[in-house]
Amino acid sequence: MKPLQNIQVLDFSHALAGPLCTYHLGLLGADVIKVERPEVGDDLRHYTEHAGAKNMSAPFVAANAGKRSIALDLKSAEGMEAARRLALRADVIVENFRPGVPKKLGIDYAAMQAINPKIIYCSLTGFGATGELKDWAAYDHIVQAMSGIMWLNGEPEQGPLKVGLPFADTFSGYVAAFAVMTALFQRERGGIGQFIDIGMLDATLMLLSQGIATFSMSGAVPIRTGNRGYRLVATSDTYQTKDGYLSIGANHQHQFVAMCQALGWTDILNNPCFADHQARSANNDLLRATLERHFASMSAEELEQKLAAVSVPVSKVRSIPEIIQHPHVQERDLFVQTSVPGLDHPVLLTGSGFRFAEDTPARHSSVPTIGQHTQEILREIGM
Amino acid sequence: MKPLQNIQVLDFSHALAGPLCTYHLGLLGADVIKVERPEVGDDLRHYTEHAGAKNMSAPFVAANAGKRSIALDLKSAEGMEAARRLALRADVIVENFRPGVPKKLGIDYAAMQAINPKIIYCSLTGFGATGELKDWAAYDHIVQAMSGIMWLNGEPEQGPLKVGLPFADTFSGYVAAFAVMTALFQRERGGIGQFIDIGMLDATLMLLSQGIATFSMSGAVPIRTGNRGYRLVATSDTYQTKDGYLSIGANHQHQFVAMCQALGWTDILNNPCFADHQARSANNDLLRATLERHFASMSAEELEQKLAAVSVPVSKVRSIPEIIQHPHVQERDLFVQTSVPGLDHPVLLTGSGFRFAEDTPARHSSVPTIGQHTQEILREIGM
Repeated sequence: MKPLQNIQVLDFSHALAGPLCTYHLGLLGADVIKVERPEVGDDLRHYTEHAGAKNMSAPFVAANAGKRSIALDLKSAEGMEAARRLALRADVIVENFRPGVPKKLGIDYAAMQAINPKIIYCSLTGFGATGELKDWAAYDHIVQAMSGIMWLNGEPEQGPLKVGLPFADTFSGYVAAFAVMTALFQRERGGIGQFIDIGMLDATLMLLSQGIATFSMSGAVPIRTGNRGYRLVATSDTYQTKDGYLSIGANHQHQFVAMCQALGWTDILNNPCFADHQARSANNDLLRATLERHFASMSAEELEQKLAAVSVPVSKVRSIPEIIQHPHVQERDLFVQTSVPGLDHPVLLTGSGFRFAEDTPARHSSVPTIGQHTQEILREIGM
Repeated sequence: MKPLQNIQVLDFSHALAGPLCTYHLGLLGADVIKVERPEVGDDLRHYTEHAGAKNMSAPFVAANAGKRSIALDLKSAEGMEAARRLALRADVIVENFRPGVPKKLGIDYAAMQAINPKIIYCSLTGFGATGELKDWAAYDHIVQAMSGIMWLNGEPEQGPLKVGLPFADTFSGYVAAFAVMTALFQRERGGIGQFIDIGMLDATLMLLSQGIATFSMSGAVPIRTGNRGYRLVATSDTYQTKDGYLSIGANHQHQFVAMCQALGWTDILNNPCFADHQARSANNDLLRATLERHFASMSAEELEQKLAAVSVPVSKVRSIPEIIQHPHVQERDLFVQTSVPGLDHPVLLTGSGFRFAEDTPARHSSVPTIGQHTQEILREIGM
């Protein structure tokens, strides 16, 4: 039995963070009913266009595979009656409207709890349900700017830099899924419903735990460190090779020795400037320049093989196509194969990011068209 | 009752991802017993030094507050007997050794399951328990390089860039906590134990869902887009002001008009080159240069106030001290106040990233010294 089998999720959310939350619940076996406006549907459907696949932008597909879609006009009496009947049998409700909108629509926590006292209601907003910023409009990069993550990302000698993916949206959706799972467990043991309040800012700040603890303990303000690894030494960095970039992590003495030996770098190995960690730290710039020179004429994949063979942490910097096609990733079977109406080939989507020995998260699904399951779902609730 | 009250977590993990997993479980009320080597303890304790607070590096504090520590030598008969007795009463075991090490130590899933058939056992590794990379050594930046996230992060005209925090470690720990919570719910309903296999690469890839879907649908290789927001237009970007950086998200026509009016930019508003979305897209470089010039002489906080007042998404790019001290964040009460032995002031740590109406995650805790609770825990298991 999948972990969330027989769990019903009523999903009033749109765009990115909310739908990603319910996508993860769906992968684990929940029946996710996505409520969409008739005809237009979720705005995210129209973000990019693909030949043949109408209303199926890539970000929409990535966040909505495996769900059922019901088209409801929440401003009509019939639409609200359907919403109420769906709420009555739901375990979880997820919405990511701006504060105040759910109440206007009549689907706020108080209204839904009156129908179904054990409901778990997850409200996902830019800045949370309370506090002076609660009514601020949020986009992903605005939350990144506010949270401190943009400040920390980038090269030290340049300005702050947005993380190169819709990070605040994506991570907030994941935090919401975790919060819902926690409330489900709590309810299973104690029988109570729950109201969950998540701001994208709250979720994003949570990832900054090291930087916040560092500042709070010592008063030192964390700064941008570019490509430097966590140890901030030249042997833990990323270098340009003749055909791509390579990250290495030769932090310990045995790793440094192994690297030099495997690559035939006796000049570096025998140089007293680089003899041990202390010497290498004192001559960090010289070592970086030396490594830059050496790596520049070599091939990234060749280096990767040679260093991995002697257990030095290493990876070529891979693009998305390169990592998807990597034999290791294919063997791990990490993706969900999805069919998209109008598209003539299956689409690979990311899965749960973990594997269970039993009932591992779902591997196959399809993406609903707007209101594809309206009739079927209305029948289920006797309408 | 806290969601994980009466749940016991036996934590054999060290460094970052594993301890962060159990930190999140602890925030939710679990009793986390951290097993450490006598005297040395978790290596992460020694990563940075703070006057007075011995063996209490900031990353260690951030990942281990609220736990109890027992010092056990797993290579001694007495140490293994204690581990077995702890496993017998545990609900969850978490470890992040390299593959093969748990078996050598006698604490692998098979051994623990034989003692406690309902155990939920979470194995957290760099590249997962299977596949050709399973024995590769992993550091955070190596996984970032492998996963494609480094490829996507940075300015388009420069090379790939590591995300400016230990992102693969931090996020993997969070995914592990979610997987454990899922298995707990599954066990509560169905009564079975579970083996959870998470690679840091698996978890990190999962955050790339939009990029992977885009490539899989269209064959287009996602590229670095620097500071550009998700819409890739000049009105959704980050600009230097006279006293800091500012991110704006004036994507829609009404937001663009509101921005120009609020800032008195009639020249831009009346320029036919920028009349609507289509015109602005066609003249994107000109618009960016114009905005750069206008923003350069203004103050970030003043701009933030003016734009927020007319509902244009906006944020000053804040550093960690700036966001921690923001009145909104203080009002949201997002942090855990922690006491650190040897330190004369409380430390702020990140909390769960969400709030519950009832039994919200813990707000206060302390950090254990090495083996601080050894006697107490040994008594509990009759030794």
